[in-house]
Order: sequence, then structure tokens, then C-alpha cells
Amino acid sequence: MVLKLSTTFLRTLREDPVDAEVASHKLLVRAGYIRRAAPGIYTWLPLGLRVLSRVEAIVREEMNAIGAQEVHFPALLPREPYEQTGRWTEYGEGLFRLKDRKEADYLLAPTHEEMFTLLVKDLYNSYKDLPVYLYQIQNKYRDEARPRAGLLRGREFIMKDSYSFNIDDEGLDEAYMAHRGAYLKIFERLGLEVVPVFAQAGAMGGSKSEEFLHPTAIGEDTFVRSPGGYAANVEAVTTVVPEDIDFSQLPAFEVLDTPDAPTIDTLVAVSNELRPRTDRAWEAKDTLKNVVLAIIDPEGNRHLVVLGVPGDRQVDEKRLEATIGAALGINGEVGVEQATAEDLKSHPEIVTGYLGPALGLDKQLLGKDTEGGITYLVDPRVVSGSSWVTGANEHGKHVFGLVAGRDFTFDGTIEAVNVLEGDPAPDGSGPLRTERGIEMGHIFQLGRKYAEALELKVLDQNGKLQVVTMGSYGIGVTRAVAALAEAYHDENGLAWPKQVAPADIHIVVTGKGAELLEAAEKLANEFEAAGKEVIFDDRPKVSAGVKFSDAELIGVPTIVVVGRGLADGLVEVKDRATGERRDVAVAEVVAELSA
Amino acid sequence: MVLKLSTTFLRTLREDPVDAEVASHKLLVRAGYIRRAAPGIYTWLPLGLRVLSRVEAIVREEMNAIGAQEVHFPALLPREPYEQTGRWTEYGEGLFRLKDRKEADYLLAPTHEEMFTLLVKDLYNSYKDLPVYLYQIQNKYRDEARPRAGLLRGREFIMKDSYSFNIDDEGLDEAYMAHRGAYLKIFERLGLEVVPVFAQAGAMGGSKSEEFLHPTAIGEDTFVRSPGGYAANVEAVTTVVPEDIDFSQLPAFEVLDTPDAPTIDTLVAVSNELRPRTDRAWEAKDTLKNVVLAIIDPEGNRHLVVLGVPGDRQVDEKRLEATIGAALGINGEVGVEQATAEDLKSHPEIVTGYLGPALGLDKQLLGKDTEGGITYLVDPRVVSGSSWVTGANEHGKHVFGLVAGRDFTFDGTIEAVNVLEGDPAPDGSGPLRTERGIEMGHIFQLGRKYAEALELKVLDQNGKLQVVTMGSYGIGVTRAVAALAEAYHDENGLAWPKQVAPADIHIVVTGKGAELLEAAEKLANEFEAAGKEVIFDDRPKVSAGVKFSDAELIGVPTIVVVGRGLADGLVEVKDRATGERRDVAVAEVVAELSA
Repeated sequence: MVLKLSTTFLRTLREDPVDAEVASHKLLVRAGYIRRAAPGIYTWLPLGLRVLSRVEAIVREEMNAIGAQEVHFPALLPREPYEQTGRWTEYGEGLFRLKDRKEADYLLAPTHEEMFTLLVKDLYNSYKDLPVYLYQIQNKYRDEARPRAGLLRGREFIMKDSYSFNIDDEGLDEAYMAHRGAYLKIFERLGLEVVPVFAQAGAMGGSKSEEFLHPTAIGEDTFVRSPGGYAANVEAVTTVVPEDIDFSQLPAFEVLDTPDAPTIDTLVAVSNELRPRTDRAWEAKDTLKNVVLAIIDPEGNRHLVVLGVPGDRQVDEKRLEATIGAALGINGEVGVEQATAEDLKSHPEIVTGYLGPALGLDKQLLGKDTEGGITYLVDPRVVSGSSWVTGANEHGKHVFGLVAGRDFTFDGTIEAVNVLEGDPAPDGSGPLRTERGIEMGHIFQLGRKYAEALELKVLDQNGKLQVVTMGSYGIGVTRAVAALAEAYHDENGLAWPKQVAPADIHIVVTGKGAELLEAAEKLANEFEAAGKEVIFDDRPKVSAGVKFSDAELIGVPTIVVVGRGLADGLVEVKDRATGERRDVAVAEVVAELSA
Repeated sequence: MVLKLSTTFLRTLREDPVDAEVASHKLLVRAGYIRRAAPGIYTWLPLGLRVLSRVEAIVREEMNAIGAQEVHFPALLPREPYEQTGRWTEYGEGLFRLKDRKEADYLLAPTHEEMFTLLVKDLYNSYKDLPVYLYQIQNKYRDEARPRAGLLRGREFIMKDSYSFNIDDEGLDEAYMAHRGAYLKIFERLGLEVVPVFAQAGAMGGSKSEEFLHPTAIGEDTFVRSPGGYAANVEAVTTVVPEDIDFSQLPAFEVLDTPDAPTIDTLVAVSNELRPRTDRAWEAKDTLKNVVLAIIDPEGNRHLVVLGVPGDRQVDEKRLEATIGAALGINGEVGVEQATAEDLKSHPEIVTGYLGPALGLDKQLLGKDTEGGITYLVDPRVVSGSSWVTGANEHGKHVFGLVAGRDFTFDGTIEAVNVLEGDPAPDGSGPLRTERGIEMGHIFQLGRKYAEALELKVLDQNGKLQVVTMGSYGIGVTRAVAALAEAYHDENGLAWPKQVAPADIHIVVTGKGAELLEAAEKLANEFEAAGKEVIFDDRPKVSAGVKFSDAELIGVPTIVVVGRGLADGLVEVKDRATGERRDVAVAEVVAELSA
């Protein structure tokens, strides 16, 4: 059906909405695709719904192509399954919770691992039933602290989420790779550049995980790429661990008075003054900073931990939250805070600003082997034989040349600090470069976490019950529409790629006279008969200028102008993206553009 | 894509689910179309989703055909707009309410009048923009006290809701009739018999309203039909009012001792004993029952009302709730309760069991004109000149021959009692018949209620602001799937009409041997190439008997059996609905069934 603008429910705006920061948000609102209903909650108007349904169709086709089967779960779900996996509490304030009239607890689902697990448990009981891949395209809810950027981070949004169920790890690998392949195809078909980057599985549990990031300056996620193609989320970059160093020839450590050096900067300055190096100046990376943190487990208990990290690095709390639970043997989501005076009450041995691990192996202060010692974890760069300037556990004193493995030990290493532009890439191809991106998709090898919590077991070939292994895979469908708008626009408006555009042809009629309108309408019908979708700007009393700028704003790939040239049998064809214009004979334009 | 049962996510059940009462619920679960996630909340499995999407497609086509434009609103909405129209409180316990992390109030929308009104207000400002019809197919939420009958009354369900916006009443009439026509077409295409019945607009406000009821014994709604085609919801039937009676020749009323006659039954018995009629025996319909009720307004205030109704009728609370507000000038949803002793404290003149309106016009007890009198409303059958046996306002006494208009007056008439099978139909075509039905759709002329509350005004031709007039129109999409399952099944399972069936052909291969399986698969692919959707039961190690019974249970219109006959070049074609079987040459079956 030709979409006539004279009757289409559409009002384009000249001004950007006041709450909009990013181009996709501004343009989707201005061009009449979406409208805000509440913070982070949007209404789809007719043009927006068209783009959305085209994106959904591409996602659906590629999911079906790998044998995934579509189902549809409710968004309103009971508490119990999420209680069983611990996510009812782990999700914290991000979960919309409510009660029904009988005071039973419900939630608006942020993702559906639990429900899919229970459904498969409900229907299947044998290894012969597996593998099975299930998916849905469905509304999700997350009570974001700061919903922002229009559709990019909303509180009600559409996701495609799928789940794989296999009897063994090889099966899970296959399912994971099938989804990975489908995702790459989906983004390629959408025309959306993505980089698959290694990611921390985090709160989802499980082992292997990759994010599909669309590189853009407005992205919320930072990731790193190497010249050789390695890419990882900053929380998941693996540090290139230096070789152990032979410490047999290193001089003994030395404790020096370093008054007024409680920070890394002052310590570096004092070191260069007090004990200048012969090879080069002291730098922050030569110091070992010991940070006391409180880790809060899901039950709210506080666990003290000291992290020893090179002085040029910051502890990345998000990264630490993803790794520290496993390091301490805590299940579920953990919180990280600076230790408080209260936390430190029972540790009078800690001298703030001058904390160090030891002064020799017989004077170890930190670590679980020490009586009353706090767990001591270090950055992977703290290898055996590495030598450090660090605190001497006495006010105004630091120790120089304290050697790991010779003078102090630790309980383990942990990936917890920020990545720096120029760090060596794990693939050995050179220095890492940092970039920003939007997370468009995420794939996880969940493993058996959910199946164990919810007791999804099937009989194996030997008639024994086996816990099923699972994967979970998500694409932000709403977000894909926004990312496409980010990637395909210019200063005049949107410029959709044809596979997701709300129409193929936008016909503008300019000038007065019934014959122009008639000719344009005839063209519109002919395009439609040729299988093209048409927007027809037939609005009376709207100037040609407004019609042109609306066409640019709406962003259909091809604009056909029916105007003065018609007297000579010509219409103008304009490519929205390139701006290229040419005259085409009206008798040939349908055949040409449909070819 | 051929749906192979060996890999389809499906498990048919031999037993009915324990919580299922009606056939659609039992069969949709047993045949693997849906699965319960929580009370009144269901998951759509692959086969169910196919039927659902076919129903949605038909609804969408017919809505588009009347020029309605599809949009999509969030389900999670802020409180404010619903507060402005009063529905935040009026919905009572039926509304799912929740708070976000900032303690702001939200709801899960049961319908979207407010949001559509605000959207049109946001985009439009002139009569030239109107009319506009907007619709969505979207999840709705109602916290039903007793979710029942599977998909028939759920708490999360899909509705098509549309809204019309016009500048004047003629426009609204047109919009209403366009929707009415579209609805009749939709139900006809679905193959679902419906009767449009007059309805009370009730809580929705507004004037004209019709329900589309699907007649079935398991329906929750009672409606009446006349031989001439009149049909109405029992709450909306208009009483055929008898002619006024000339009372000039009627004898004066007479007060008699009627001990032990506090009920209608005892009163009728006593009357026949004490003052037998000459023409016929006294019946309950000759008595005037006066019922004292408390009407609770939206602010919780109680208003006393007495209803005078013929003794053979019961006050229908649902009906009364829909009419009494307007009669008393109360806006919003009202509650109705029996008056309590507390309510009656200030009315010592009321003698329970012997209440009557008056003993002559000078001894009027009820009615607003009486000093301290309670509002007195009567059934429309209480016409001037009608003569009644009723209470004499003294214990153990009744009055005989009390004549309306001569001996007592009232404040007005009200439609508040139940309809009886055999009541005369308003269209004069004979007696009414009562039937049960499921509400499949509902159309309302809302008028200006919402537009006024939310200030939706546009400039008219004279440049003056006019309040827009609205209609709202709903179809239960989820419910339509259930109603179709109710209408199309037999003792062996479902038997879908082809336009909504999950596939066109269900191929069953029986017997062993690779050549049978190959031939069946070849057939499946040929059917698909001919544009048919195919379910192919290729499950190994499943007996022919189980395959046949699953095919009957799943209910695809045509079953093709590839088995022994193949040696003679024949397959069996079975019509699921009629049970008719015939052999068809394998070489011709695709062409024949695709014709």
C-alpha cells in the first residue's frame, strides 16, 4: 500500500528534542519514527514500526537458518525461578519487581534463561531430544539508573534472545559457533559494522563469551583492538604476562625515609631525588600500589582484600566485579567498595599510604598464610623476580627493590586494572588501541549453571542422568534500529540502507496542477506494482522546500521528484545517501529503479 | 521451511493438564501449542506462535484496509495520564502497579486510551489532520481475580486495540461503523461466528457500544437474541415498557394483615389465600419489591437508594453498576452493596420486609421529594396506572392495589434487573432467548471523555479550539486463538480451519525402509515448492499409531499418509475435519491438493 503523507500519522520536527544527546535519538524523533512515553520508554510510530519489523525479519531469517525455533515467553514472570538461580536478588535495582493482587512476587523479565531452562525440562528428558536451539523476539525490561541516548539504552526494549541446550561441551561449542556465525550474517545484512570482542561472562555465569560491538564514538563500551585483529572488551583483555626474572643477582631491598610521599606521584618524585636510577628515571609503573577493598557478597557480607597493582594503573571496578567473585570463591554478583575505617578497625597493622606486602619473606604482612593476614592478590605483571618500590608499613617509609618471590608472596593474581593504550596485545601483533562501541549482541557459553540450579537433566546414552549444558545469545533489536540511525545519517537527516528503510522510493510532487499529482500517483502505483514500497508526498499546501527537507529527514534511499520536468517527460531521481541527482524519462523510471 | 517433527520443539501429551477445564485449554496444551508460565500467563510454543501470527496477520490486513495505521506503545507506562482520567484508581485491583528505582509509579497497561490521546495531542493540532485511526497489536495486562480457561481469560494477553479521532459526531459514527465492518470481516475470515450485541459502555465512559460475542456454552457472558435479530448483552437489554394504564376505574388500595409474609414467595401465597384474584392467581410479578442499596462512589462515599422492582426479578449488580452512576450524577466507577444496619440507622421509618413507597400521595415514604426520603428509582415496568402488592411500612402488613402515579411517585426509572428468557424483544419480533458467549471484540463510542480529561483539542474551520471525539475498539487476539480451538475440535484433538492452521499439510510416514522416508521427504519438498506449509512426521522409532494420533491432536487440515500403498503408487489423503479418506496417486497428490 502506497503510504500517502497527506494521511500518514506523521509530524516532522525542525527542532531537536530537548532531552536528546545523540544523532539517532534526535533524528528518529524529528523524522517521526519514535516518541518518548516515559524516561527510557518509547512508542513506535508508523515509520519506526516499519524499520523495526524489517530488522526483526532479518534476525528471524538468520535464526531460522541455523535451525533455531521461535517461541514467545511472557514478560511478566513469577519470582520463584529467578529466586532459584539467585538472580532475583543479584539483579539489584535493575529489576522491575511487582506484586499481584494476591501479594505474590513477579518481575518484568530482563532475560529469560530460567524460563527456557524450565521449559526444556518440562518437555524433554533424553539426549535424543538434543540439541535444541530456541529463540524469541520479545520485550525486555531493565530499570536502568540512567536511561540515555533514546533507543540506545532504554528501560523497555526489544531483544532477540536465544538459548541452546546440549548434552556435552562439544555440542555447546557447535551451538556457540552457529550463533556466532548467524550474528555476523545478521549484522552484515543489516549493514552494521561489528567487531566480535572477547568479554567477561560476568553475572551470567559461564565461561566463554563474546560481545558484538559496533564501533562508534558515542558508544558506552570501551574495547581494545590489536593490529593483528585481536579484540576484547576492556574488562576481558588478558594481560601479556612478562617472563619471570632471575633475581639471584638483584641487590637486597632497602627501607628509606620518604616523608610526604603518600601518593604515587609524590613517591616517584621522591624516589628520583633520593635514589636516582642509572638507566632511566623512576616511573609510576615501578611502584607497587596496594589498595584495600571491601568485596560485598550476595548476602551482604564484606570481605577485605588487598590488591597489589603497578602504580600507573587504576583498579577497574567493573572488571574487578567480574573477576573477584571467582578468585574468592563467591557465587553470584559481588559489589566492590573502598575499605572503610570500620573495615580496617581490626587491622591496626595497616598504615594508610605506606602499605606494603612484606619486608622479607619472614616479615610478610599480607596474604592468607600470614596470621590474621588479608587476602593479597596482585596484577599479573607482578611476576617472580620483578622489583618494586612500595610501602614499608611505617609512616613516612618506603621500601626500594622489594622483589616478588624473594621478599614477598601473594595469594594469587587477578585481572583487575585498566588497559592502557599501547599495552602489548595478547596476539603478539603489536600495541593495543582503545576504541568505543555500542554492544549490539552478546553470546555466552553458560555451561551448566542454570541447568544445575533448576535441575535440567536428561538421560544419556547409558541411561544415566546428565546435566544439560547451555548457551545464551542476545541481540538488541531496538538498539539495532538506533545504531543504524547513528551509522546512516548526515546533517540533513536519516539515510537508511535499503534493507531496513521504511520504503524504497519517496515520491515528491512539486508545483501545482492536478496533472502533476495524477502523474505522481500513477508512478507511485506503478512502483508498487513492480514490488517497490512507496512513500508518496501528496500533501497539498506544503511547499516544495518542506517536502524536500522532509524527504531528506525521513531518509528513504531513493527520492523521485515529479515537477516541472514532467512537461519534457522527465522526473528527477536523487540518491539520498550520495546526493547524486539525475533526470530520467518518466516512462523508464519504474523499470530502471526496479531493475 | 518443512517442519520436521524429529527436530521440532514439541511434546504432545496423552493426559489433560490438571488445571484445565475447557477444551481449548486442554487441547492447546496437549498438542504442544502453549504452556503455562504462571496463573493466567502462557508461553507460546512453535506451533502456537504460527497460529497466533496467522490470526494477527488477518487482523492487521483488515485494519489496514479501513485506513488504520499501526503503531506500537510500551506496555510499561507512567501513572500520570491514568491519574488524569481517574482510571489509576477506578481499575482497582485489576491493574498491575509497580514502582521504578526512583519510586515513581508505573502500571502495566490494560488498555491505552490515555496514551493514544496524548500522542495525537502531541502530533496534531488541526481539524485538517483528522480523522485518524491508529491501532496496535500488543501485550495487555489485567490482574484478573480468577484467571481461567487457559487463554480465554489470562493476565498477560495480546489485544489489537485501535482508537479513532474525529472532529465531530458524524465522523465518530463513520469511524465506528468502519471498525464494526472490519470486525465482522475479521471474524468471518477467521471462521469464528460472532453476534454483535448492544453493550453498556460502563467504565470506559461514552455512549454507543457493541460487543462481538462468539456463542458457546462455555462463554462467561450472557446475552439475549430475538427471533428478528436483535441481540444485546444482558446488561444492555432495553426493557419493553408497557403502555400507561388508565387508573380512573381502579379500586382504592387496601391495607391487609399479612403476618409471616416477609418474602415474595410467602407474600404470593398469602395473597392467593387472603384476596384471591378472579382472573388468575397472584404471581411474583404482581408484587413490588423494594430493595435498599448502598452505592459507593469513587471517593468511597455511600449513597442510599431504594429500587422498586417487580417481585419476579433480581437486581443485576453488574447492570446496576453500569447504570446507577449516571442516574445519581456520579462520575467514575461505582460499587453496589446491600445496605447495612449502619446505613439504615438514620432511617427508622424503614420496616425491613414490609417496605413500600407510600400509602397514598400524601403519605409518600420514599423519594427525594419526601422530607428525609431516600432516592427511589423503579423498574421501567412500573408505569403509570400499574397496580401492585407491596409493603405497608408496618410489620406484618401489606398494601394491595397500590397504583403508580395515583398512590405513589418515584424519582425515576432505571434498568437494573435481570432479563428473563421469554421477555418481549425490543424489536417487537417475539420473545428473547438467552445464550452464552465469549467476548471476542468490543467497540465503543467514547465521545469526548478522554479528550476532555487530557485536553486534546484541535482548531476547527473557524480557528476555534474543539475537543476531539474518540472511539476505542478492541479484539482479543490471544482469546481468538482459544475460541478457534473451542470451535474447531473433536474428541481426537484440534481441527483448525486452513486460514489459521499451523500448516496446510501434515505428512505421516508409516512403516520402515529408507525408500518410504525418502518418498515422503520428496513429497514434503514438492508441497512446499507449491506454496504449501508442511509438517513432516519423520520421527524414527515412533509407531504409526502414535503418529496418527498426534496428527489428529495437532489438527492440520489435511493429513497425507505415506505407507504401504506407496508400492502401488498411492498415498492416503485424510481430511482432518470430516475424517474422509481417499487414496490418491503419489504423482498427482501435490497438484491436486494445491489446486
